[in-house]
Amino acid sequence: MRGDQSTAWEQGRKRRSRSGALDAMLVRLLLKGFSGVPLGFVLWDGTRLPLETARPVVWIQVHDRQSLLKLALNPDLQFGELYSAGRLDVDGSLVELGKAIYRVSLTSTVRSPLAAVLRFVNRPSGNAEQQSRENIHHHYDIGNDFYRLWLDRQLVYTCAYFADPAMTLEAAQVSKMDYVCRKLDLRPGDRVAEAGCGWGALALHMARHYGAQVRAFNISTSQLAYARERARTEGLSDRVEFVEGDYREIEGEYDAFVSVGMLEHVGPRHYRDLGRVVDRVLTPAGRGLIHSIGSSISAPMNPWIERHIFPGGYTPTVREMMEMLEPFHFAVLDVENLRQHYARTLEHWLARYEQHVDEVHAMFDEPFVRAWRLYLSGSIAAFHSGALQLFQVLFNRTGAGDVAWTRAVIYRD
Amino acid sequence: MRGDQSTAWEQGRKRRSRSGALDAMLVRLLLKGFSGVPLGFVLWDGTRLPLETARPVVWIQVHDRQSLLKLALNPDLQFGELYSAGRLDVDGSLVELGKAIYRVSLTSTVRSPLAAVLRFVNRPSGNAEQQSRENIHHHYDIGNDFYRLWLDRQLVYTCAYFADPAMTLEAAQVSKMDYVCRKLDLRPGDRVAEAGCGWGALALHMARHYGAQVRAFNISTSQLAYARERARTEGLSDRVEFVEGDYREIEGEYDAFVSVGMLEHVGPRHYRDLGRVVDRVLTPAGRGLIHSIGSSISAPMNPWIERHIFPGGYTPTVREMMEMLEPFHFAVLDVENLRQHYARTLEHWLARYEQHVDEVHAMFDEPFVRAWRLYLSGSIAAFHSGALQLFQVLFNRTGAGDVAWTRAVIYRD
Repeated sequence: MRGDQSTAWEQGRKRRSRSGALDAMLVRLLLKGFSGVPLGFVLWDGTRLPLETARPVVWIQVHDRQSLLKLALNPDLQFGELYSAGRLDVDGSLVELGKAIYRVSLTSTVRSPLAAVLRFVNRPSGNAEQQSRENIHHHYDIGNDFYRLWLDRQLVYTCAYFADPAMTLEAAQVSKMDYVCRKLDLRPGDRVAEAGCGWGALALHMARHYGAQVRAFNISTSQLAYARERARTEGLSDRVEFVEGDYREIEGEYDAFVSVGMLEHVGPRHYRDLGRVVDRVLTPAGRGLIHSIGSSISAPMNPWIERHIFPGGYTPTVREMMEMLEPFHFAVLDVENLRQHYARTLEHWLARYEQHVDEVHAMFDEPFVRAWRLYLSGSIAAFHSGALQLFQVLFNRTGAGDVAWTRAVIYRD
Repeated sequence: MRGDQSTAWEQGRKRRSRSGALDAMLVRLLLKGFSGVPLGFVLWDGTRLPLETARPVVWIQVHDRQSLLKLALNPDLQFGELYSAGRLDVDGSLVELGKAIYRVSLTSTVRSPLAAVLRFVNRPSGNAEQQSRENIHHHYDIGNDFYRLWLDRQLVYTCAYFADPAMTLEAAQVSKMDYVCRKLDLRPGDRVAEAGCGWGALALHMARHYGAQVRAFNISTSQLAYARERARTEGLSDRVEFVEGDYREIEGEYDAFVSVGMLEHVGPRHYRDLGRVVDRVLTPAGRGLIHSIGSSISAPMNPWIERHIFPGGYTPTVREMMEMLEPFHFAVLDVENLRQHYARTLEHWLARYEQHVDEVHAMFDEPFVRAWRLYLSGSIAAFHSGALQLFQVLFNRTGAGDVAWTRAVIYRD
């Protein structure tokens, strides 16, 4: 792993020209945007900047002048681009660097006007059905073998719930599935629609442990193939149907509607469409739960993540999430913020990823390996710092009677 | 109680003229707006309408033609006006009538265009400071002796929390105060700002049981006098300061901000002002909790309630509540809907009110007695049916670290 970085570093040294006053100015510009972050730069000729401050905790090594220029012009996007390409390295912890940057950016009101313009340009335009399919294939059809290397045994690729902070990732994913079922007050025989079912773990869990009859929708073909095979071998095919389809294609009548980790891909312009679907299929006494990455601040995703990891992704505020509920007179019953649990989940994922990084190398090229390391590390930092939040929103139809009297039942063993 | 109704009824009979086709048409118009409600009308000459349906569960007795006309033109406002004035009576349960009406109005998409216009005209215009004072005096300075007749011992005039549905009102109000303190993770020495403290029960509870240092703000002079006297006799004056002031006047620095049952009086145009106050006074690690009546649907209060009970009142949706949090980058940690607990609270209040109605009669005139009966009965119906909701919103600054790991701690004994 370090080997490749050294190679890039050596290449940088070879094509180096002495850094000068202009480069120092670009570094100062960059540091201004990250003021308060214990950060230094090492340029291609070995120059360390800033000269004046205490020793930085993290050094960003920039291997050529063009990369420095790109970084200065659009750090949000280019940090990821350059890091993936090996034109930039980090001497120190990527996670700690991310946390420090997010901490500063969340408390500071100073934002680069250039960054604001770029954010606006990058703002996702909403996901029509065909575009959704392309976006989802981009991320989820990389191959089950890749995800198997670092997810839990059941391939649950969403925030776990660590009822006890010390529990294993496997246990915390089961704990999350139970938590969702308890919030939904799931009963034997309940008909459930799941929108965006991933590799099917939750759908199968609901059928096996709660006696639910589940129709689970997904547009990722490789995930669906995996989920159907699991249902078959586990003898649950009569109780769980995996349907290739977008949330817009959900038909029928259901006692519960659940979606864990799909709203991020829906795009805010389509929240109302999603609400309309739920309104169409939910029984009068039905319950719904939406679990989604969110934000405290209405802003587009990081442009690098949006470009390479989650095309079309958007992380809404609670206010924005209401766009799918309020027009259809759904009543909000419970909103919970689980961002700390996502930081913990991602720490497990990153640790497993690094344990298996040689296998990832055998499957993909170096930029892919680096991109995923950055994505996992940056996400830990984002959830830890609060730049990203994780909301579970429980709702039902206004006036429907059968809500739990208190939430204490969720926490009873 | 029945005596006065009979008198009104007799007066109606005296000034009756035979009801005719026009009156029947008005009744049909009214019944159209309440289609599905098991409702009948008894007119001043004894005519019962509708003729064709099964025996209604509730009869509305209209004592004169002018009242029928007023009711048909603006039922939302005039039902309360006419009932209070004794020009209309209900043979059957006011609560059940209310529930049935709300059930229909929440599920029906048919609304009288006239009603919509009237709602718009009645929309509250936001509460400047002087207006706030007048509105609050209207309701809360009626006199402590009146509220003492039917509230709990500590005069808590907000939704209780029935951890156990069978607990007494006194216990449920204490349970609510503990619930709020637990959600806020209140610790000894914490400085708390309370906006809109009523008769001071929560402020005193926080100081006595959680070791908090509380500054509690209120603009109702009679409530403040009561609260200060309690602090003095209970030896808590050094730990609780009751300040005559609007939420806009809160200064200082606090580890927690709490407001229970005030947002309803703030008016949506001022949510941002309230958020600005919280942003100004809350420490970086501070927590906030807003407890407010709300709604699933963005709409003004019932015009009769707004005119006579809560001038300037407004019950926001979750989306609307976010206007006080999102602009200041507060992170939503927890939203809970406690509407069923408010219905239960109001049932206790109404039962006590009726037990002490002779004492109310000795203090106030008949229209007042009837108005409060209608208000309490209608509110039970509104919370029971979901026309009104009760939201507790817990928040902190985005990225602040010291949030409970799970909510299970709130429910541990």
